[in-house]
Amino acid sequence: MTACCTLTTDFGTADGFVGAMKGVLARLAPGLRVVDLAHDVPRHDVAHGAWVLATAAREFPRGSIHVAVVDPGVGGDRPEVIAAIDGHYYVGPDNGLFAYVAAAGPVEGTWAIAGAAFRMAEVAPTFHGRDVFAPAAAALARGLPPEAAGPATCLGGRLPWPARADGEAGVVVHVDHFGNLITNLPGPARAVTIGERVAPPARTYGDVAVGELACYVGSAGTLEIAVRDGSAADVLAAGRGAVAVRA
Amino acid sequence: MTACCTLTTDFGTADGFVGAMKGVLARLAPGLRVVDLAHDVPRHDVAHGAWVLATAAREFPRGSIHVAVVDPGVGGDRPEVIAAIDGHYYVGPDNGLFAYVAAAGPVEGTWAIAGAAFRMAEVAPTFHGRDVFAPAAAALARGLPPEAAGPATCLGGRLPWPARADGEAGVVVHVDHFGNLITNLPGPARAVTIGERVAPPARTYGDVAVGELACYVGSAGTLEIAVRDGSAADVLAAGRGAVAVRA
Amino acid sequence: MTACCTLTTDFGTADGFVGAMKGVLARLAPGLRVVDLAHDVPRHDVAHGAWVLATAAREFPRGSIHVAVVDPGVGGDRPEVIAAIDGHYYVGPDNGLFAYVAAAGPVEGTWAIAGAAFRMAEVAPTFHGRDVFAPAAAALARGLPPEAAGPATCLGGRLPWPARADGEAGVVVHVDHFGNLITNLPGPARAVTIGERVAPPARTYGDVAVGELACYVGSAGTLEIAVRDGSAADVLAAGRGAVAVRA
Repeated sequence: MTACCTLTTDFGTADGFVGAMKGVLARLAPGLRVVDLAHDVPRHDVAHGAWVLATAAREFPRGSIHVAVVDPGVGGDRPEVIAAIDGHYYVGPDNGLFAYVAAAGPVEGTWAIAGAAFRMAEVAPTFHGRDVFAPAAAALARGLPPEAAGPATCLGGRLPWPARADGEAGVVVHVDHFGNLITNLPGPARAVTIGERVAPPARTYGDVAVGELACYVGSAGTLEIAVRDGSAADVLAAGRGAVAVRA
Repeated sequence: MTACCTLTTDFGTADGFVGAMKGVLARLAPGLRVVDLAHDVPRHDVAHGAWVLATAAREFPRGSIHVAVVDPGVGGDRPEVIAAIDGHYYVGPDNGLFAYVAAAGPVEGTWAIAGAAFRMAEVAPTFHGRDVFAPAAAALARGLPPEAAGPATCLGGRLPWPARADGEAGVVVHVDHFGNLITNLPGPARAVTIGERVAPPARTYGDVAVGELACYVGSAGTLEIAVRDGSAADVLAAGRGAVAVRA
Repeated sequence: MTACCTLTTDFGTADGFVGAMKGVLARLAPGLRVVDLAHDVPRHDVAHGAWVLATAAREFPRGSIHVAVVDPGVGGDRPEVIAAIDGHYYVGPDNGLFAYVAAAGPVEGTWAIAGAAFRMAEVAPTFHGRDVFAPAAAALARGLPPEAAGPATCLGGRLPWPARADGEAGVVVHVDHFGNLITNLPGPARAVTIGERVAPPARTYGDVAVGELACYVGSAGTLEIAVRDGSAADVLAAGRGAVAVRA
């Protein structure tokens, strides 16, 4: 079994939640390679988790399984799904977590996780990561087809902004660890106004002076606003959801 | 070699300590699968580490090796042990870290880590994770029997509360990443008083209104107190050690 | 393929950066074992990352590949290199990250990462971890010789202090997760003055009373100053770069 199973959660790295999921995977799919993507997604921040998937999952080989659990509605009525997108499997709650990867598409199918081979017999209502999503991933890793998980469905989860802006006005969709503001505006690089400031176009932040703003095509393929050797989020006092307009 | 070796520490994720342990394992047991459970256990917080083990380790397949290093007394006289519990091996200091898993039992044996094949020839008094516990885990992974590690002994480490309360009064034994208060009171769900507040019984926090308290059987099998979309620890100003009484 | 590839970054554990690197490695070198060393190196703190490598990398078996990305100058003109040191490969920016491991040596060769098999065809100027360093590591893991990466060069990156002090005065080169102050003074243990305080020699912090200072040979092999059950960094109000003199 050479498939990879990645894990993205908001469980942090101090509790046993991530370990419990890994234990289930090791027990139910012994040869599966399990890879941590990020576990410090801010609590309940679905859009943040979606961005992690959007920037990391598609780098893995096709056939990979991506389990994502940022799930403020666990135990409620949001669906539990497997989505097949561009040759990858995504497993988690359908609450918007898969919105970016689905927008990049193509979505080849979505199925509810209902079958006994894809869930524990007893499911704790507060821990679907352990009792639903890890078992579902293990079932896929063992070669069960996603159709066996349950009835076909459609991805319904949405985020408050589109994956790609289609006009002159976009939005900051992610603030990264370095304080860079990542927008949903496509390239090429051009000046962008955010609040009352204009970030001039550049190839990269390394091309401007220390403390200066720059707007360039980031590693995710969209316009990104940075401050050389600083935090654009701090300097501009701007965060996710801020409007970014082509100047 | 298909066994798993899990790692639980309070070493954080900014230093080389965890990496050094992984390096020793890779060198001494090349095919061993090494799995991170949690490295952000609060510094020196043995009871927290014990809870991580209690909620994650038993999900792994039998034969797994769980190395845990939360060890404020490193280099002192607390014993270094291998404990065989319910088909799993636990390797670390005997300071209470294994109290919960031992209480769930059965404890099949405990051995001091004394043999040359289970320790480095030179042991840094401040880093037994690298020089004692990782080598001991590697020896087990290579197939050496735990009896070869050293003389049989008994687990002596204790925590300030029992793994399971046996009356009407229990205690908060863990506060998780989401601020949920996890008690040692067994189910089924019922109203629990904590401080001057009563948390009414529910199936899960998703069943109460936003901001309301709920008491339900958590994913660890004991009563847990949560605030829907909030932090019970903050709302109740309660933490580990707080008394929780059936109302 | 039994080689290990370790990852050390300042990317944190909330973004997709680490995951993207792992995806590239999984895609380009499917059987490679990828091991997290530390991802919470403080942002842009090259000396901190260098210390992580110094204390962890050499524990791995020879032939291991260590990718390190703490790279404030990404996209600028600092070189991208593979260094062969004591049977290990180090892959990353030549900005001082490899200064400690190079000082321990021997450095068997250094090569620029220029060849098409070692880089993506398109390289994002802000993410060499994904587009240069992970592909280079994958190429090594697939068996390509480092000479194929590009022209031979020399490691030029320096840190502000030597790996080992050669007189009576040294410097604090690292503050660890526990607040211990690690110096570049070689052993054996002796009294060390830091600021206006003297830390007396000990075998380990466990040998002194709670709250007392001790200076002992730490697990990295140099003198280390600790406070029993406390933080020497806090008690002494000292940090990296502080002068430590044999008393």
